[in-house]
Amino acid sequence: MREDVVERTEWLMGIYRSSGDFIDMAPAEFRNIVRRGEWTGDTVKACRGYAMVNLAIVPKDLAADLLLFCNRNPQACPVVDVTDPGSPVPEFLAPDADLRTDLPRYHVLREGKIIDKPTDIKDYWRDDLVAFLLGCSGSFEWALQSANLAYRTIGAYNTNIPCVPAGLFSGRMVVTCRLFASSHDAIRAIQITSRHPHMHGSPVHIGDPAAIGIGDLYNSEYGPIENVEPQRPNEIALFWACGVTPELIAREAKLPFMITHAPAHMFVTDKLSEELAIL
Amino acid sequence: MREDVVERTEWLMGIYRSSGDFIDMAPAEFRNIVRRGEWTGDTVKACRGYAMVNLAIVPKDLAADLLLFCNRNPQACPVVDVTDPGSPVPEFLAPDADLRTDLPRYHVLREGKIIDKPTDIKDYWRDDLVAFLLGCSGSFEWALQSANLAYRTIGAYNTNIPCVPAGLFSGRMVVTCRLFASSHDAIRAIQITSRHPHMHGSPVHIGDPAAIGIGDLYNSEYGPIENVEPQRPNEIALFWACGVTPELIAREAKLPFMITHAPAHMFVTDKLSEELAIL
Repeated sequence: MREDVVERTEWLMGIYRSSGDFIDMAPAEFRNIVRRGEWTGDTVKACRGYAMVNLAIVPKDLAADLLLFCNRNPQACPVVDVTDPGSPVPEFLAPDADLRTDLPRYHVLREGKIIDKPTDIKDYWRDDLVAFLLGCSGSFEWALQSANLAYRTIGAYNTNIPCVPAGLFSGRMVVTCRLFASSHDAIRAIQITSRHPHMHGSPVHIGDPAAIGIGDLYNSEYGPIENVEPQRPNEIALFWACGVTPELIAREAKLPFMITHAPAHMFVTDKLSEELAIL
Repeated sequence: MREDVVERTEWLMGIYRSSGDFIDMAPAEFRNIVRRGEWTGDTVKACRGYAMVNLAIVPKDLAADLLLFCNRNPQACPVVDVTDPGSPVPEFLAPDADLRTDLPRYHVLREGKIIDKPTDIKDYWRDDLVAFLLGCSGSFEWALQSANLAYRTIGAYNTNIPCVPAGLFSGRMVVTCRLFASSHDAIRAIQITSRHPHMHGSPVHIGDPAAIGIGDLYNSEYGPIENVEPQRPNEIALFWACGVTPELIAREAKLPFMITHAPAHMFVTDKLSEELAIL
Protein backbone atom coordinates (compact mmCIF):
# COMPACT_ATOMS: atom_id res chain seq x y z
CA MET A 1 0.00 0.00 0.00
CA ARG A 2 1.28 3.52 -0.76
CA GLU A 3 2.42 5.43 2.31
CA ASP A 4 -0.06 8.25 1.85
CA VAL A 5 -2.90 5.75 1.63
CA VAL A 6 -1.70 4.06 4.80
CA GLU A 7 -1.65 7.41 6.59
CA ARG A 8 -5.10 8.29 5.35
CA THR A 9 -6.39 4.92 6.42
CA GLU A 10 -4.88 5.35 9.88
CA TRP A 11 -6.61 8.69 10.15
CA LEU A 12 -9.91 7.22 9.03
CA MET A 13 -9.47 4.63 11.76
CA GLY A 14 -8.99 7.47 14.25
CA ILE A 15 -5.48 6.39 15.06
CA TYR A 16 -4.25 9.95 15.74
CA ARG A 17 -5.37 10.68 19.26
CA SER A 18 -2.94 13.34 20.39
CA SER A 19 -0.07 15.38 18.98
CA GLY A 20 2.16 12.89 20.80
CA ASP A 21 1.39 10.49 17.94
CA PHE A 22 3.56 12.75 15.75
CA ILE A 23 6.42 13.08 18.22
CA ASP A 24 8.99 11.26 16.04
CA MET A 25 7.74 12.62 12.70
CA ALA A 26 9.67 15.01 10.44
CA PRO A 27 8.08 18.48 10.23
CA ALA A 28 7.41 18.30 6.46
CA GLU A 29 5.56 15.02 6.89
CA PHE A 30 3.52 16.39 9.80
CA ARG A 31 2.65 19.53 7.83
CA ASN A 32 1.44 17.38 4.94
CA ILE A 33 -0.96 15.60 7.27
CA VAL A 34 -2.19 18.94 8.56
CA ARG A 35 -2.43 20.32 5.01
CA ARG A 36 -4.67 17.42 3.98
CA GLY A 37 -6.93 18.17 6.94
CA GLU A 38 -6.15 14.88 8.63
CA TRP A 39 -5.09 16.48 11.90
CA THR A 40 -6.85 19.53 13.32
CA GLY A 41 -5.70 19.18 16.92
CA ASP A 42 -2.89 20.85 18.84
CA THR A 43 0.79 20.68 17.88
CA VAL A 44 2.22 20.65 21.40
CA LYS A 45 3.99 17.30 21.19
CA ALA A 46 4.56 17.08 17.43
CA CYS A 47 8.05 16.69 15.93
CA ARG A 48 10.25 16.52 19.02
CA GLY A 49 13.17 18.95 18.97
CA TYR A 50 11.81 21.16 16.18
CA ALA A 51 10.93 24.79 16.75
CA MET A 52 7.26 25.66 16.49
CA VAL A 53 6.18 29.24 16.01
CA ASN A 54 3.15 31.44 16.50
CA LEU A 55 1.40 33.22 13.67
CA ALA A 56 0.11 36.77 13.30
CA ILE A 57 -1.09 37.86 9.84
CA VAL A 58 -2.06 41.46 9.12
CA PRO A 59 -2.67 43.57 6.01
CA LYS A 60 0.40 45.32 4.68
CA ASP A 61 -0.81 48.70 5.97
CA LEU A 62 -0.57 47.39 9.56
CA ALA A 63 2.65 45.43 9.06
CA ALA A 64 5.09 48.22 9.86
CA ASP A 65 3.33 48.96 13.15
CA LEU A 66 3.22 45.26 14.05
CA LEU A 67 6.92 44.91 13.30
CA LEU A 68 7.63 47.89 15.54
CA PHE A 69 5.35 46.44 18.21
CA CYS A 70 7.28 43.16 18.07
CA ASN A 71 10.58 44.96 18.38
CA ARG A 72 9.32 46.90 21.37
CA ASN A 73 8.02 43.73 23.04
CA PRO A 74 10.67 41.14 22.18
CA GLN A 75 9.80 38.73 24.96
CA ALA A 76 6.14 38.53 23.97
CA CYS A 77 6.67 38.77 20.19
CA PRO A 78 10.13 37.61 19.12
CA VAL A 79 10.24 37.87 15.32
CA VAL A 80 11.64 34.73 13.70
CA ASP A 81 10.42 35.17 10.11
CA VAL A 82 8.26 37.62 8.13
CA THR A 83 6.82 36.84 4.71
CA ASP A 84 6.74 39.17 1.76
CA PRO A 85 3.28 40.71 1.20
CA GLY A 86 1.01 38.15 -0.45
CA SER A 87 3.40 35.26 0.03
CA PRO A 88 2.28 32.45 2.32
CA VAL A 89 5.78 30.94 2.33
CA PRO A 90 8.07 31.33 5.40
CA GLU A 91 11.32 31.24 3.43
CA PHE A 92 13.63 31.04 6.42
CA LEU A 93 11.75 28.55 8.57
CA ALA A 94 10.25 26.14 6.03
CA PRO A 95 10.56 27.12 2.36
CA ASP A 96 8.24 24.37 1.12
CA ALA A 97 5.44 25.19 3.54
CA ASP A 98 2.19 27.08 3.00
CA LEU A 99 0.97 29.14 5.94
CA ARG A 100 -2.60 29.07 4.59
CA THR A 101 -2.95 25.34 5.16
CA ASP A 102 -0.12 24.03 7.32
CA LEU A 103 -1.44 24.98 10.75
CA PRO A 104 -4.19 22.79 12.19
CA ARG A 105 -6.42 25.68 13.23
CA TYR A 106 -6.58 29.47 12.91
CA HIS A 107 -8.41 32.36 14.52
CA VAL A 108 -9.71 35.07 12.18
CA LEU A 109 -10.37 38.40 13.92
CA ARG A 110 -12.22 41.47 12.63
CA GLU A 111 -12.61 44.63 14.70
CA GLY A 112 -11.38 42.73 17.75
CA LYS A 113 -13.83 39.84 17.46
CA ILE A 114 -13.01 36.25 16.56
CA ILE A 115 -15.25 35.68 13.55
CA ASP A 116 -14.03 32.24 12.47
CA LYS A 117 -11.88 29.34 13.68
CA PRO A 118 -11.11 27.57 10.39
CA THR A 119 -8.64 24.75 9.70
CA ASP A 120 -7.27 26.60 6.68
CA ILE A 121 -7.35 30.24 5.60
CA LYS A 122 -7.46 29.84 1.82
CA ASP A 123 -10.74 31.76 1.69
CA TYR A 124 -9.28 34.64 3.74
CA TRP A 125 -6.00 34.96 1.93
CA ARG A 126 -5.27 38.24 0.13
CA ASP A 127 -2.35 39.62 -1.84
CA ASP A 128 -1.67 42.31 0.74
CA LEU A 129 -1.29 40.03 3.76
CA VAL A 130 1.99 39.80 5.65
CA ALA A 131 2.63 36.84 7.95
CA PHE A 132 4.71 37.18 11.13
CA LEU A 133 6.20 34.00 12.55
CA LEU A 134 6.87 34.63 16.23
CA GLY A 135 8.81 32.43 18.63
CA CYS A 136 6.81 30.02 20.78
CA SER A 137 7.67 28.60 24.19
CA GLY A 138 6.55 25.20 22.93
CA SER A 139 9.97 25.14 21.27
CA PHE A 140 11.95 25.22 24.49
CA GLU A 141 9.85 22.51 26.12
CA TRP A 142 12.21 20.13 24.33
CA ALA A 143 15.20 21.79 25.96
CA LEU A 144 13.58 21.66 29.42
CA GLN A 145 12.74 18.00 28.96
CA SER A 146 16.23 17.18 27.69
CA ALA A 147 17.62 18.62 30.92
CA ASN A 148 15.38 16.24 32.87
CA LEU A 149 13.63 19.07 34.71
CA ALA A 150 10.60 18.21 36.83
CA TYR A 151 7.83 20.63 35.91
CA ARG A 152 4.22 20.94 34.85
CA THR A 153 2.96 23.24 32.12
CA ILE A 154 -0.32 24.60 33.43
CA GLY A 155 -1.92 27.08 31.05
CA ALA A 156 -1.98 30.46 29.31
CA TYR A 157 -3.36 33.58 31.00
CA ASN A 158 -4.11 37.22 30.36
CA THR A 159 -2.08 39.46 32.69
CA ASN A 160 -2.09 43.09 33.76
CA ILE A 161 1.41 43.57 32.27
CA PRO A 162 1.10 46.33 29.65
CA CYS A 163 2.88 45.84 26.34
CA VAL A 164 4.75 48.84 24.94
CA PRO A 165 2.36 50.21 22.29
CA ALA A 166 3.15 50.89 18.63
CA GLY A 167 0.58 52.53 16.36
CA LEU A 168 -2.76 50.74 16.76
CA PHE A 169 -1.14 47.88 18.62
CA SER A 170 -1.56 48.12 22.37
CA GLY A 171 -2.79 45.91 25.15
CA ARG A 172 -1.70 43.43 27.77
CA MET A 173 0.69 40.49 27.73
CA VAL A 174 -0.43 36.87 27.72
CA VAL A 175 1.81 34.45 29.63
CA THR A 176 2.17 30.73 30.08
CA CYS A 177 2.74 29.20 33.51
CA ARG A 178 4.98 26.30 34.43
CA LEU A 179 5.38 24.92 37.95
CA PHE A 180 8.84 23.57 38.81
CA ALA A 181 9.36 20.95 41.51
CA SER A 182 12.35 22.69 43.10
CA SER A 183 14.41 25.87 43.15
CA HIS A 184 17.15 23.95 41.36
CA ASP A 185 14.89 23.07 38.45
CA ALA A 186 13.42 26.59 38.27
CA ILE A 187 16.89 28.18 38.20
CA ARG A 188 18.03 25.68 35.57
CA ALA A 189 14.94 26.54 33.50
CA ILE A 190 15.82 30.24 33.64
CA GLN A 191 19.34 29.43 32.46
CA ILE A 192 18.13 27.19 29.65
CA THR A 193 15.41 29.49 28.35
CA SER A 194 17.84 32.42 28.42
CA ARG A 195 19.58 30.58 25.57
CA HIS A 196 16.36 30.79 23.55
CA PRO A 197 15.57 34.51 23.19
CA HIS A 198 13.85 33.79 19.86
CA MET A 199 11.40 31.57 21.78
CA HIS A 200 10.38 34.17 24.45
CA GLY A 201 13.68 33.74 26.31
CA SER A 202 13.73 33.98 30.10
CA PRO A 203 10.57 34.21 32.22
CA VAL A 204 8.88 37.54 32.85
CA HIS A 205 7.67 36.68 36.36
CA ILE A 206 8.46 34.44 39.32
CA GLY A 207 6.00 33.48 42.02
CA ASP A 208 2.66 35.02 42.89
CA PRO A 209 0.19 34.90 39.95
CA ALA A 210 -1.90 37.68 41.52
CA ALA A 211 1.04 40.10 41.22
CA ILE A 212 0.58 40.07 37.43
CA GLY A 213 -3.20 40.00 37.50
CA ILE A 214 -3.86 36.27 37.24
CA GLY A 215 -6.82 35.49 39.49
CA ASP A 216 -6.86 31.72 39.28
CA LEU A 217 -4.16 29.43 37.90
CA TYR A 218 -6.73 26.68 37.39
CA ASN A 219 -9.04 28.73 35.23
CA SER A 220 -7.48 29.89 31.98
CA GLU A 221 -8.96 32.08 29.27
CA TYR A 222 -7.37 29.78 26.72
CA GLY A 223 -8.91 26.40 27.13
CA PRO A 224 -9.91 24.11 29.96
CA ILE A 225 -7.39 23.04 32.61
CA GLU A 226 -8.49 19.66 33.79
CA ASN A 227 -7.15 17.15 36.26
CA VAL A 228 -4.39 19.47 37.41
CA GLU A 229 -3.13 18.99 40.95
CA PRO A 230 -2.98 22.21 42.97
CA GLN A 231 0.42 23.88 43.34
CA ARG A 232 2.52 22.08 45.94
CA PRO A 233 4.28 24.13 48.67
CA ASN A 234 7.81 23.77 47.24
CA GLU A 235 6.81 24.28 43.60
CA ILE A 236 8.07 27.49 41.98
CA ALA A 237 5.79 29.18 39.44
CA LEU A 238 7.56 30.71 36.44
CA PHE A 239 5.70 32.72 33.82
CA TRP A 240 6.90 33.24 30.26
CA ALA A 241 5.53 35.71 27.73
CA CYS A 242 3.23 33.90 25.31
CA GLY A 243 2.65 34.13 21.56
CA VAL A 244 -1.08 34.43 22.10
CA THR A 245 -0.33 38.06 23.01
CA PRO A 246 -1.01 39.32 19.43
CA GLU A 247 -4.50 37.79 19.56
CA LEU A 248 -5.23 39.60 22.83
CA ILE A 249 -3.80 42.81 21.32
CA ALA A 250 -6.09 42.40 18.28
CA ARG A 251 -9.08 41.95 20.59
CA GLU A 252 -8.19 44.77 23.00
CA ALA A 253 -7.16 47.25 20.29
CA LYS A 254 -10.08 46.15 18.04
CA LEU A 255 -7.73 45.84 15.09
CA PRO A 256 -9.55 45.85 11.73
CA PHE A 257 -8.15 42.47 10.65
CA MET A 258 -5.76 39.82 11.94
CA ILE A 259 -5.36 36.10 11.53
CA THR A 260 -3.54 34.15 14.25
CA HIS A 261 -2.89 30.51 15.02
CA ALA A 262 -5.46 29.06 17.40
CA PRO A 263 -3.81 28.75 20.85
CA ALA A 264 -1.72 25.53 21.02
CA HIS A 265 -2.10 25.02 17.24
CA MET A 266 1.27 26.28 16.07
CA PHE A 267 3.28 26.13 12.86
CA VAL A 268 5.97 23.44 13.03
CA THR A 269 9.15 24.59 11.30
CA ASP A 270 12.08 22.77 9.70
CA LYS A 271 14.51 24.30 12.21
CA LEU A 272 15.57 22.48 15.34
CA SER A 273 15.11 24.62 18.46
CA GLU A 274 18.84 24.32 19.10
CA GLU A 275 19.56 25.77 15.64
CA LEU A 276 17.85 28.96 16.78
CA ALA A 277 19.41 29.12 20.27
CA ILE A 278 22.20 31.47 21.23
CA LEU A 279 25.32 30.21 23.04
CA MET B 1 55.30 63.59 52.43
CA ARG B 2 55.82 59.98 51.35
CA GLU B 3 52.63 58.23 50.29
CA ASP B 4 52.91 55.52 52.96
CA VAL B 5 53.25 58.16 55.65
CA VAL B 6 50.17 59.97 54.34
CA GLU B 7 48.23 56.73 54.47
CA ARG B 8 49.41 55.95 57.98
CA THR B 9 48.49 59.44 59.06
CA GLU B 10 45.03 59.12 57.54
CA TRP B 11 44.59 55.90 59.46
CA LEU B 12 45.75 57.50 62.69
CA MET B 13 43.17 60.21 62.08
CA GLY B 14 40.53 57.48 61.70
CA ILE B 15 39.86 58.36 58.09
CA TYR B 16 39.01 54.79 57.05
CA ARG B 17 35.45 54.30 58.23
CA SER B 18 34.20 51.56 55.91
CA SER B 19 35.52 49.32 53.18
CA GLY B 20 33.84 51.77 50.81
CA ASP B 21 36.81 54.06 51.47
CA PHE B 22 38.92 51.59 49.45
CA ILE B 23 36.45 51.24 46.58
CA ASP B 24 38.74 52.78 43.95
CA MET B 25 42.00 51.35 45.30
CA ALA B 26 44.15 48.74 43.51
CA PRO B 27 44.17 45.36 45.29
CA ALA B 28 47.93 45.37 45.98
CA GLU B 29 47.65 48.75 47.67
CA PHE B 30 44.67 47.66 49.75
CA ARG B 31 46.46 44.45 50.79
CA ASN B 32 49.45 46.52 51.93
CA ILE B 33 47.19 48.56 54.21
CA VAL B 34 45.74 45.35 55.61
CA ARG B 35 49.20 43.80 55.96
CA ARG B 36 50.36 46.78 58.04
CA GLY B 37 47.35 46.29 60.32
CA GLU B 38 45.84 49.61 59.32
CA TRP B 39 42.49 48.12 58.31
CA THR B 40 40.89 45.25 60.22
CA GLY B 41 37.32 45.73 59.03
CA ASP B 42 35.35 43.99 56.28
CA THR B 43 36.35 43.93 52.61
CA VAL B 44 32.85 44.07 51.15
CA LYS B 45 33.25 47.32 49.19
CA ALA B 46 37.01 47.31 48.67
CA CYS B 47 38.56 47.45 45.17
CA ARG B 48 35.52 47.66 42.93
CA GLY B 49 35.47 45.08 40.15
CA TYR B 50 38.11 42.81 41.64
CA ALA B 51 37.36 39.26 42.72
CA MET B 52 37.54 38.58 46.43
CA VAL B 53 37.82 35.04 47.69
CA ASN B 54 37.20 33.03 50.82
CA LEU B 55 39.92 31.20 52.68
CA ALA B 56 40.11 27.71 54.19
CA ILE B 57 43.48 26.51 55.46
CA VAL B 58 44.00 22.92 56.63
CA PRO B 59 47.00 20.69 57.38
CA LYS B 60 48.25 18.70 54.41
CA ASP B 61 46.78 15.46 55.78
CA LEU B 62 43.28 16.95 55.44
CA ALA B 63 43.88 18.72 52.14
CA ALA B 64 42.96 15.84 49.83
CA ASP B 65 39.62 15.37 51.58
CA LEU B 66 38.92 19.11 51.49
CA LEU B 67 39.72 19.21 47.78
CA LEU B 68 37.32 16.33 47.21
CA PHE B 69 34.72 18.06 49.39
CA CYS B 70 35.05 21.22 47.29
CA ASN B 71 34.68 19.25 44.08
CA ARG B 72 31.56 17.55 45.41
CA ASN B 73 30.07 20.87 46.53
CA PRO B 74 31.10 23.24 43.77
CA GLN B 75 28.42 25.86 44.47
CA ALA B 76 29.40 26.20 48.13
CA CYS B 77 33.16 25.74 47.67
CA PRO B 78 34.32 26.64 44.15
CA VAL B 79 38.10 26.17 44.09
CA VAL B 80 39.90 29.14 42.54
CA ASP B 81 43.44 28.58 43.81
CA VAL B 82 45.27 26.15 46.14
CA THR B 83 48.72 26.84 47.56
CA ASP B 84 51.56 24.35 47.80
CA PRO B 85 52.02 22.98 51.33
CA GLY B 86 53.77 25.55 53.49
CA SER B 87 53.46 28.35 50.93
CA PRO B 88 51.31 31.34 51.88
CA VAL B 89 51.39 32.65 48.32
CA PRO B 90 48.33 32.32 46.03
CA GLU B 91 50.34 32.10 42.80
CA PHE B 92 47.37 32.32 40.45
CA LEU B 93 45.34 35.04 42.17
CA ALA B 94 48.01 37.39 43.56
CA PRO B 95 51.62 36.19 43.34
CA ASP B 96 52.97 39.00 45.54
CA ALA B 97 50.48 38.47 48.35
CA ASP B 98 50.90 36.72 51.68
CA LEU B 99 47.85 34.88 52.98
CA ARG B 100 49.18 35.06 56.56
CA THR B 101 48.80 38.83 56.73
CA ASP B 102 46.72 40.10 53.82
CA LEU B 103 43.24 39.40 55.14
CA PRO B 104 41.89 41.82 57.77
CA ARG B 105 40.69 39.09 60.14
CA TYR B 106 40.79 35.31 60.48
CA HIS B 107 39.02 32.59 62.45
CA VAL B 108 41.21 29.84 63.90
CA LEU B 109 39.31 26.64 64.72
CA ARG B 110 40.42 23.60 66.75
CA GLU B 111 38.18 20.59 67.31
CA GLY B 112 35.27 22.57 65.94
CA LYS B 113 35.66 25.58 68.22
CA ILE B 114 36.76 29.06 67.23
CA ILE B 115 39.79 29.59 69.46
CA ASP B 116 41.04 32.89 68.07
CA LYS B 117 40.01 35.74 65.76
CA PRO B 118 43.37 37.30 64.93
CA THR B 119 44.23 39.96 62.35
CA ASP B 120 47.17 37.90 61.07
CA ILE B 121 48.06 34.21 61.37
CA LYS B 122 51.85 34.40 61.50
CA ASP B 123 51.85 32.64 64.88
CA TYR B 124 49.66 29.82 63.55
CA TRP B 125 51.49 29.21 60.29
CA ARG B 126 53.14 25.80 59.76
CA ASP B 127 55.06 24.19 56.95
CA ASP B 128 52.33 21.60 56.37
CA LEU B 129 49.43 24.04 55.84
CA VAL B 130 47.58 24.19 52.53
CA ALA B 131 45.43 27.24 51.70
CA PHE B 132 42.28 26.95 49.62
CA LEU B 133 41.03 30.11 47.94
CA LEU B 134 37.33 29.63 47.29
CA GLY B 135 35.06 31.84 45.21
CA CYS B 136 33.04 34.46 47.05
CA SER B 137 29.71 36.01 46.10
CA GLY B 138 31.13 39.41 47.04
CA SER B 139 32.82 39.18 43.64
CA PHE B 140 29.62 39.16 41.64
CA GLU B 141 28.12 42.07 43.56
CA TRP B 142 30.04 44.22 41.08
CA ALA B 143 28.34 42.48 38.18
CA LEU B 144 24.89 42.89 39.75
CA GLN B 145 25.53 46.56 40.40
CA SER B 146 26.89 47.11 36.87
CA ALA B 147 23.59 45.76 35.54
CA ASN B 148 21.75 48.36 37.62
CA LEU B 149 19.76 45.74 39.51
CA ALA B 150 17.67 46.86 42.47
CA TYR B 151 18.42 44.56 45.39
CA ARG B 152 19.45 44.39 49.01
CA THR B 153 22.05 42.01 50.41
CA ILE B 154 20.64 40.91 53.75
CA GLY B 155 22.87 38.37 55.51
CA ALA B 156 24.41 34.92 55.75
CA TYR B 157 22.56 31.98 57.27
CA ASN B 158 23.00 28.35 58.23
CA THR B 159 20.57 26.15 56.29
CA ASN B 160 19.31 22.58 56.47
CA ILE B 161 20.80 21.82 53.03
CA PRO B 162 23.28 18.98 53.49
CA CYS B 163 26.62 19.18 51.73
CA VAL B 164 27.88 16.02 50.03
CA PRO B 165 30.44 14.66 52.53
CA ALA B 166 34.07 13.75 51.81
CA GLY B 167 36.23 12.13 54.50
CA LEU B 168 35.89 14.08 57.73
CA PHE B 169 34.20 16.95 55.94
CA SER B 170 30.44 16.94 56.34
CA GLY B 171 27.77 19.37 57.41
CA ARG B 172 25.30 21.91 56.18
CA MET B 173 25.50 24.71 53.64
CA VAL B 174 25.68 28.37 54.56
CA VAL B 175 23.92 30.76 52.18
CA THR B 176 23.67 34.48 51.60
CA CYS B 177 20.34 36.15 50.92
CA ARG B 178 19.59 38.98 48.52
CA LEU B 179 16.15 40.52 48.02
CA PHE B 180 15.38 41.73 44.48
CA ALA B 181 12.85 44.44 43.82
CA SER B 182 11.20 42.64 40.89
CA SER B 183 11.00 39.37 39.00
CA HIS B 184 12.91 41.05 36.19
CA ASP B 185 15.83 41.88 38.43
CA ALA B 186 15.81 38.44 40.09
CA ILE B 187 15.82 36.68 36.71
CA ARG B 188 18.59 38.95 35.46
CA ALA B 189 20.59 38.17 38.61
CA ILE B 190 20.25 34.45 37.93
CA GLN B 191 21.51 35.00 34.38
CA ILE B 192 24.43 37.13 35.50
CA THR B 193 25.58 34.92 38.36
CA SER B 194 25.38 31.87 36.08
CA ARG B 195 28.34 33.46 34.27
CA HIS B 196 30.31 33.33 37.53
CA PRO B 197 30.47 29.64 38.50
CA HIS B 198 33.82 30.28 40.23
CA MET B 199 31.99 32.72 42.55
CA HIS B 200 29.19 30.32 43.67
CA GLY B 201 27.38 30.67 40.33
CA SER B 202 23.58 30.63 40.24
CA PRO B 203 21.43 30.67 43.39
CA VAL B 204 20.59 27.47 45.24
CA HIS B 205 17.14 28.59 46.37
CA ILE B 206 14.30 30.93 45.43
CA GLY B 207 11.65 32.16 47.81
CA ASP B 208 10.67 30.84 51.22
CA PRO B 209 13.58 30.94 53.71
CA ALA B 210 11.87 28.36 55.92
CA ALA B 211 12.04 25.78 53.12
CA ILE B 212 15.83 25.64 53.61
CA GLY B 213 15.74 25.89 57.38
CA ILE B 214 16.16 29.64 57.85
CA GLY B 215 13.94 30.69 60.72
CA ASP B 216 14.35 34.45 60.60
CA LEU B 217 15.88 36.51 57.79
CA TYR B 218 16.52 39.35 60.21
CA ASN B 219 18.55 37.32 62.67
CA SER B 220 21.74 35.91 61.19
CA GLU B 221 24.31 33.65 62.80
CA TYR B 222 26.99 35.75 61.13
CA GLY B 223 26.73 39.20 62.48
CA PRO B 224 24.02 41.70 63.32
CA ILE B 225 21.46 42.79 60.74
CA GLU B 226 20.45 46.28 61.60
CA ASN B 227 18.16 48.84 60.08
CA VAL B 228 16.89 46.42 57.47
CA GLU B 229 13.41 47.03 56.17
CA PRO B 230 11.21 43.90 56.17
CA GLN B 231 10.78 42.09 52.86
CA ARG B 232 8.30 43.90 50.63
CA PRO B 233 5.49 41.93 48.94
CA ASN B 234 6.96 42.01 45.44
CA GLU B 235 10.56 41.38 46.48
CA ILE B 236 12.02 38.03 45.43
CA ALA B 237 14.44 36.33 47.82
CA LEU B 238 17.36 34.55 46.17
CA PHE B 239 19.86 32.52 48.15
CA TRP B 240 23.41 31.74 47.02
CA ALA B 241 25.78 29.21 48.53
CA CYS B 242 28.28 31.01 50.78
CA GLY B 243 31.99 30.62 51.40
CA VAL B 244 31.41 30.56 55.15
CA THR B 245 30.33 26.94 54.57
CA PRO B 246 33.84 25.54 55.36
CA GLU B 247 33.77 27.24 58.78
CA LEU B 248 30.40 25.64 59.56
CA ILE B 249 31.74 22.30 58.32
CA ALA B 250 34.78 22.66 60.61
CA ARG B 251 32.46 23.38 63.55
CA GLU B 252 29.94 20.65 62.78
CA ALA B 253 32.52 17.98 61.91
CA LYS B 254 34.79 19.11 64.79
CA LEU B 255 37.78 19.14 62.47
CA PRO B 256 41.13 19.06 64.32
CA PHE B 257 42.38 22.31 62.74
CA MET B 258 41.26 24.89 60.20
CA ILE B 259 41.86 28.56 59.62
CA THR B 260 39.26 30.56 57.67
CA HIS B 261 38.67 34.17 56.83
CA ALA B 262 36.34 35.89 59.29
CA PRO B 263 32.93 36.29 57.59
CA ALA B 264 32.95 39.40 55.34
CA HIS B 265 36.75 39.76 55.75
CA MET B 266 37.89 38.25 52.44
CA PHE B 267 41.10 38.13 50.46
CA VAL B 268 41.09 40.67 47.63
CA THR B 269 42.79 39.26 44.53
CA ASP B 270 44.50 40.83 41.53
CA LYS B 271 41.96 39.30 39.15
CA LEU B 272 38.92 41.21 37.96
CA SER B 273 35.68 39.30 38.51
CA GLU B 274 35.11 39.42 34.75
CA GLU B 275 38.49 37.75 34.14
CA LEU B 276 37.18 34.72 36.03
CA ALA B 277 33.71 34.66 34.45
CA ILE B 278 32.64 32.22 31.78
CA LEU B 279 30.94 33.40 28.58
